[in-house]
Amino acid sequence: MAKKWVYLFSEGNKDMRDLLGGKGAGVAEMTRAGLPVPPGFTITTEACNAFFAGGEKFPEGTWDQVLDALKWVEQQTGKKFGDPNNPLLVSVRSGAKFSMPGMMDTVLNIGLNPQTLQGISRLTGNERFAYDAYRRLIQMFGRIVKDIDGRKFDHILEGYKEKTEGKQDTDLTTDMLKQVVKDYKALYKKELGVEFPDDPLAQLRQAIEAVFGSWFGKRAVDYRNFNKIPHDLGTAVNVQTMVFGNMGFDSGTGVAFTRNPATGDKALYGEYLQNAQGEDVVAGIRTPKKIAQLQDDMPVVYGQFVKVANQMERHYREMQDLEFTVEKGKLWMLQTRTGKRTAQAAVKVAVEMVNEGLITKQEAIMRVEPAQINQLLLPRFDPKAKDVAAGEGKLLAKGLNASPGAAAGKAIFDADTAETLGTNGESVILVRPETNPDDVHGMLVARGILTQHGGATSHAAVVARGLGKPCVSGTEAIRVDTETKSFSANGLTVKEGDLISIDGTTGEVFLGAIKTIAPNFAEEKDLQILLGWANEAKRLGVWANADYPRDATNARLFGAEGIGLCRTEHMFFEEERLPIVQKMILSESEDEREKYLAQLLPFQRSDFEGIFRVMDGLPVIIRLIDPPLHEFLPKYEDLLVEVTNLRGATSFSRDERLVSILEEKEKMLKAVGAMREANPMLGLRGIRLGITFPGITKMQVRAIFEAACNVTKEGKSVHPEVMIPLTGHINELKVTQTALEDVAKAVMKEKGLEIHYKFGTMIEVPRAALTAGEIAQMAQFFSFGTNDLTQMTFGYSRDDAEGKFLLQYVEKKILPENPFQALDRIGVGRLVKMAVEEGRKTRPDLEVGICGEHGGDPSSIEFCHQVGLNYVSCSPFRVPIARLAAAQAALGQVTRDK
Amino acid sequence: MAKKWVYLFSEGNKDMRDLLGGKGAGVAEMTRAGLPVPPGFTITTEACNAFFAGGEKFPEGTWDQVLDALKWVEQQTGKKFGDPNNPLLVSVRSGAKFSMPGMMDTVLNIGLNPQTLQGISRLTGNERFAYDAYRRLIQMFGRIVKDIDGRKFDHILEGYKEKTEGKQDTDLTTDMLKQVVKDYKALYKKELGVEFPDDPLAQLRQAIEAVFGSWFGKRAVDYRNFNKIPHDLGTAVNVQTMVFGNMGFDSGTGVAFTRNPATGDKALYGEYLQNAQGEDVVAGIRTPKKIAQLQDDMPVVYGQFVKVANQMERHYREMQDLEFTVEKGKLWMLQTRTGKRTAQAAVKVAVEMVNEGLITKQEAIMRVEPAQINQLLLPRFDPKAKDVAAGEGKLLAKGLNASPGAAAGKAIFDADTAETLGTNGESVILVRPETNPDDVHGMLVARGILTQHGGATSHAAVVARGLGKPCVSGTEAIRVDTETKSFSANGLTVKEGDLISIDGTTGEVFLGAIKTIAPNFAEEKDLQILLGWANEAKRLGVWANADYPRDATNARLFGAEGIGLCRTEHMFFEEERLPIVQKMILSESEDEREKYLAQLLPFQRSDFEGIFRVMDGLPVIIRLIDPPLHEFLPKYEDLLVEVTNLRGATSFSRDERLVSILEEKEKMLKAVGAMREANPMLGLRGIRLGITFPGITKMQVRAIFEAACNVTKEGKSVHPEVMIPLTGHINELKVTQTALEDVAKAVMKEKGLEIHYKFGTMIEVPRAALTAGEIAQMAQFFSFGTNDLTQMTFGYSRDDAEGKFLLQYVEKKILPENPFQALDRIGVGRLVKMAVEEGRKTRPDLEVGICGEHGGDPSSIEFCHQVGLNYVSCSPFRVPIARLAAAQAALGQVTRDK
Repeated sequence: MAKKWVYLFSEGNKDMRDLLGGKGAGVAEMTRAGLPVPPGFTITTEACNAFFAGGEKFPEGTWDQVLDALKWVEQQTGKKFGDPNNPLLVSVRSGAKFSMPGMMDTVLNIGLNPQTLQGISRLTGNERFAYDAYRRLIQMFGRIVKDIDGRKFDHILEGYKEKTEGKQDTDLTTDMLKQVVKDYKALYKKELGVEFPDDPLAQLRQAIEAVFGSWFGKRAVDYRNFNKIPHDLGTAVNVQTMVFGNMGFDSGTGVAFTRNPATGDKALYGEYLQNAQGEDVVAGIRTPKKIAQLQDDMPVVYGQFVKVANQMERHYREMQDLEFTVEKGKLWMLQTRTGKRTAQAAVKVAVEMVNEGLITKQEAIMRVEPAQINQLLLPRFDPKAKDVAAGEGKLLAKGLNASPGAAAGKAIFDADTAETLGTNGESVILVRPETNPDDVHGMLVARGILTQHGGATSHAAVVARGLGKPCVSGTEAIRVDTETKSFSANGLTVKEGDLISIDGTTGEVFLGAIKTIAPNFAEEKDLQILLGWANEAKRLGVWANADYPRDATNARLFGAEGIGLCRTEHMFFEEERLPIVQKMILSESEDEREKYLAQLLPFQRSDFEGIFRVMDGLPVIIRLIDPPLHEFLPKYEDLLVEVTNLRGATSFSRDERLVSILEEKEKMLKAVGAMREANPMLGLRGIRLGITFPGITKMQVRAIFEAACNVTKEGKSVHPEVMIPLTGHINELKVTQTALEDVAKAVMKEKGLEIHYKFGTMIEVPRAALTAGEIAQMAQFFSFGTNDLTQMTFGYSRDDAEGKFLLQYVEKKILPENPFQALDRIGVGRLVKMAVEEGRKTRPDLEVGICGEHGGDPSSIEFCHQVGLNYVSCSPFRVPIARLAAAQAALGQVTRDK
Repeated sequence: MAKKWVYLFSEGNKDMRDLLGGKGAGVAEMTRAGLPVPPGFTITTEACNAFFAGGEKFPEGTWDQVLDALKWVEQQTGKKFGDPNNPLLVSVRSGAKFSMPGMMDTVLNIGLNPQTLQGISRLTGNERFAYDAYRRLIQMFGRIVKDIDGRKFDHILEGYKEKTEGKQDTDLTTDMLKQVVKDYKALYKKELGVEFPDDPLAQLRQAIEAVFGSWFGKRAVDYRNFNKIPHDLGTAVNVQTMVFGNMGFDSGTGVAFTRNPATGDKALYGEYLQNAQGEDVVAGIRTPKKIAQLQDDMPVVYGQFVKVANQMERHYREMQDLEFTVEKGKLWMLQTRTGKRTAQAAVKVAVEMVNEGLITKQEAIMRVEPAQINQLLLPRFDPKAKDVAAGEGKLLAKGLNASPGAAAGKAIFDADTAETLGTNGESVILVRPETNPDDVHGMLVARGILTQHGGATSHAAVVARGLGKPCVSGTEAIRVDTETKSFSANGLTVKEGDLISIDGTTGEVFLGAIKTIAPNFAEEKDLQILLGWANEAKRLGVWANADYPRDATNARLFGAEGIGLCRTEHMFFEEERLPIVQKMILSESEDEREKYLAQLLPFQRSDFEGIFRVMDGLPVIIRLIDPPLHEFLPKYEDLLVEVTNLRGATSFSRDERLVSILEEKEKMLKAVGAMREANPMLGLRGIRLGITFPGITKMQVRAIFEAACNVTKEGKSVHPEVMIPLTGHINELKVTQTALEDVAKAVMKEKGLEIHYKFGTMIEVPRAALTAGEIAQMAQFFSFGTNDLTQMTFGYSRDDAEGKFLLQYVEKKILPENPFQALDRIGVGRLVKMAVEEGRKTRPDLEVGICGEHGGDPSSIEFCHQVGLNYVSCSPFRVPIARLAAAQAALGQVTRDK
């Protein structure tokens, strides 16, 4: 007996993807669930492999089994393949285990020929429809099965469309379509030397063979090679009865979600059209009705559909997106799949399904994409304020919603000005024809970015998403003039400094500043519930990076369990402090330097007091000064221009005032010049600074411990952890940590208090990871600075690389992902893993976390879970994402371990 | 029976260091060899440990054994301890297994008291000597054994010296010394409350106890902790008969080498003084005689000494440095140790000893320090001429000895002039405040380089060492004025064209031209022989880094077995090419770029042809372009100043010529500005360049293969290996290597030739080492660029770090060594080891080498041998060093494996 090559839909189920392909398994599952699915069958992937093994011939028994299956379909439908009175028409589709571009597409309407066409025409009462279906068959069959250049068919059709008034497909008359059919057939004959096959079985057989053949088409092979998909999976072929929703007013077609995909409310949500085909809904020529209307139009069908919808949701235990057709009062389910939804809906549906007993808490956690939560936590316009602005005609234009969130600020047309204003605390929207790496310093401080050109993957869009800032790109309706620093749109002109508002979630651009509302995490009840469950499931701690008390407050609100990174240098940049910092840096003697450090001490102490108060009871990791000191001084290039100009001026006139300014500037130029570095990222910074100028870090540690003692005296519980950056050699840490611990002890003695504290280091230099076993002799905790670790492990300066080649690398697939967004597991990750293992070997209770940007990236969080970190630390706004991702990682681990 | 705690010198040997300490084992070995050694004995390290275990008491039997041993010594010497007629005096010295600062020093003259002093006085006929010896005993005993502050003794002595004319020890009269003894004894009593012990046995016992006690003195404990020396080794105590060379004209003292330590000639070499003590030779108060004179003065003793010297050399199979004393016509050997020697002597002695059958070839190889060889291969000043110059006050300054060798020539203050004169055959010393890549063309032709700033690893130093040219850097005492083209130092001014001389081995800078002696490798016959033996012993290949045919010629002369690194970008900097390179870089279209690349092709091809011809039969690894392109353009800061000045000028007058220059400069400024990078080391360079601008590397590969084919047609054997720099991800290499191999194949097809070639990559990015297993799928060879690998693994930008903190780190022992000089084995080395192992797992025949500066460093070469590299590649001048180091590594391995 021949092998079973063909499965009726009723014979399969969703677990048979290997044999039936994804599509075949899906439609079998629907059938199995008792849904009214247009009958059909699947030819297996094994048949495909046997087809090639046998020299591109159907393996023995295949065709007979196809004919048997067809007979069964005829019985089910009461129609007959090739019967002019009640013809059965079928579609043929490929369906491999994985969806795969380059595979053969769908061929519809197989079974049509001049005879059956008449039958269809009669049955539908629509001759035009029948001819349109026929010309589509010839076109699809010719192009897809027989490889005729599709443009040749298009050319013929275009010719007829030109003759109509609207120049649309729908404007073609029946007579025109008859003529199209004639021309198509002539084209077919001319190209292939044979007539278009009238025999429905010949059509079917050739279509099936073509699907098999496409498995080794060049594009499919390339795709599999690139994605490392084995070549011996084979593809299945699905043959399914055609149904038509345009057979009268007892017919129709529609789509519906089992719940509202925008809000998550539990109610059918969708639309349908009477006497129409699926493509009519898509084409938008008629306005569809709300799905509820079906209840009035076809009450019986509606009742069936509601039942089916409920059944499907229960069957799949997931919100479904259903496609259906009603043919002469009979409901047919064409497709059901998991419904796409907004973040809000995703959370609500997951939580409610748990309450309904449909899914477990663990499943609910796995149902929500961590990245989606972001949407719930971004600023958005106050809806009323936005309506008012729109009503006043202030909508300037609509571009691409390139990076979500809303922002308002002054329109600024160049990055330098944006940087200057932004650094001074002004709200700025950077407006550019398009952006490039030279604009990044401006983007960094802008509230949002608006560009005239560029798509969703333009430089502006990619950088903005990376920064978590709103961006509207490709706003072709505006005309940006960088010379006059203005743009005009919708009859209005915006000049430099004028207020505008952009909504990166919708792509809208408004004149004036629209009030934005910060999201209110406390009010997101469903999210709170879900994240509560996540906390039960996760093993990783989720901490936050926070430099100021306000950040720390946010962090706690979002559920952070500690501060993983408090950067002290940000404090140095504040307006009242920077002049002192500069004098400290430029001090010519140790005494002078100590004087300025003493002035900085109270500032730092009060910063830390604020954070400790907020974080009562939780650990706070404070990183000592990290950046090169020249970052606190004026830019060398700016000074160079000033000095050059002053030299020119004083060569004409020895104006005493000018000469004295020149002298001062020259002194500063010389000082800054002496501190400049060829590669500041790899220069005098981090722990190296503390060794070279020990006074600075000693002042910081004094400030930390004075603050800790003071706040402890207020009755709070304070857990400072002092983090030393950029360690590369155990001896650096020995020298530094020992000296700083002495300061800590001295302060505690002065204050008469014992604080519970730790000293540890960042692991961000590859050598630190390679010698982590040694470094853990000193460090009580590690925190992976994966930004710098990625920079040094790849040899990428992020500032340079992202503009100059890195994004290109990602585009060309040289890198699978931007390693600054998703942690590179095999390179950087290997160092992380080694360091964790070897550090813990030396010090079993070593506390290990991550404070690079990766700490908020779900894929990287999964890795952190796998290698056994104690916590991840990310920006406060990403804490909810990280909590969910950490829970998913833990649950994924359980699944894998089973 | 009590354990044996005391060993006579005649009972020990050199292998008993654990028990007898280093000093005890050495003196035992001399005794065992039958030399006339002043008799004595050693109290063991075990006794020391037992002393502490028993609460700081001598273990049972110790003192009895000491007394027995003392008796034996008395028999040997015919003297008696404490006998006023013929008193035995002894010294007591500590001697642990390892020489160790902080341990107790020597106490001499033990056994002297008012009675024995008279005996000594009589026997020597020198009362002054006897009192001097006595006051030294009290002083040493009081300070060392009894811990009395040494300054108190000094203070007394100073008081008496003040009263003499010369204010020297030697000016003290006998009466004065008697008074000193009296005062010393009074001090002793005052400090300790007891009299200075007259009993010789009490003196001896207390001295021995003090030695033991010093084992746990604070300094000794700290030293052992720091150097990880176990605390349970204990120290031994050596008690030895005092002998005196100042007992008349039949007495004397001297030192001598068994061979000439300067030349290696086989003849006794040394000096001696009649009627004198060892310290008199050292103090230089009398002029010693040549050792040959001893033959006339004391023919019998001389005969004995010659015999002893020969015997010692044969015994130790090594050139010896001997100390001896003649006491009343009797020769006593005090010490023999391996003699220090010059490079020339080291080589000659090693080779001759093999010829004499004294040592094996392998031993000869192990006898010569690789670094020493360098001295033989560099020009050096004629010593007499240098002395004359110094005598005439022509020493201008002393800087860092940055690159060894000596040179004289005209002081020239800019690279262009240096190049012009140098090319015309003039001897030039390039003098700069500091150098940068723009100066390289001048450095190439200069005889030597002198800089005011920069450390031992500044640009000037590194390039000079690479070129094998003398360099004195960091000469902060000179002030270089590039405007007036002059510098001044030591009250003298040197103007452009004045003759100066620099010695890169010592850091000296002289006014005027001092005669130099040029080495000639071909004439260094002994060295040639030794390196021939090294070649037999070594496993590592030794290749050279060479960018030009002249370097390659040198490399072969020195024995290089291939070119491990030919840097192609140096060729781009040459005068006639740089303008084309700049136009190529600034091209605005691909067509334009191709045009300039086509112009560069013939230059590159002819460069490669020259190298291939020289390297006939040997592999040549050519690295494709590596540095960021902006290095080939004018400096941004220079352009900024020019543009600023031109803007100032044109704001006064719209001079058309100026305006057009301004426009051109502004364009250049913008172009250079767009290419600038925050951290160029981690930016767009290496393989990233080849992916971004594929035309450049394609041109280079075309040039390589055209050259290879052309030279093959001349009948030479050409083995090009194309090296792609800075790979970090396998996909980079896939894209690049595939495209370049296509070019190679196309050229070979055009030329109708098949060349044997390889494609491979540098491993210099940490990620490349971490993913070497993947990278070896493409690369046929790895070459470790340990300069960059060290930079990225440590996170050090060498240019910044060495000036700003790295040298400080080494000074403060935070780093054991400069990791750019000696490969950091535990960090960087771990990556190297991983990469070798995992690369070979993928591709067992992977060729692996190193081309960083470490390739010429003996310690790093040892590591390269251990981890199984195929070859090291270094600058041509270091090839002999590397050959010797490679042989030593192989022989060391054999020893360890035994």
